[in-house]
Amino acid sequence: MTTATYTVSGMTCGHCVSSVKEEVGEVTGVTGVEVDLATGLLTVESDNPLDTATIRAAVEEAGYEVVDHP
Amino acid sequence: MTTATYTVSGMTCGHCVSSVKEEVGEVTGVTGVEVDLATGLLTVESDNPLDTATIRAAVEEAGYEVVDHP
Repeated sequence: MTTATYTVSGMTCGHCVSSVKEEVGEVTGVTGVEVDLATGLLTVESDNPLDTATIRAAVEEAGYEVVDHP
Repeated sequence: MTTATYTVSGMTCGHCVSSVKEEVGEVTGVTGVEVDLATGLLTVESDNPLDTATIRAAVEEAGYEVVDHP
């Protein structure tokens, strides 16, 4: 299993968290998504490593932005 | 036509605005709802005056609070 973390900016409430979870959760290969509103930390689990650009695009689709991906 | 205004606290984003609009819009007799995110101003239009408690309850159902109703 692979875990990747991202920092997302622009989320202000639980609705925002839900939007990000939903969009990222729909990405093929994603098996788990966690979002921490206070820090903007997005944790994505998958069986195999995923393309960062795909996750970034899903976050943008939800209306937010990935500002950091270590 | 009657227009009543309320100040709603706790809304932080467009999703919050949508939630309030949806809940208040479902109240019997409501013919129009406007919400200004920046000021929290909720404007409710109806053919006849509505019970303030009903609007207040709809806002709370959406997860927010009416802090002022002139």
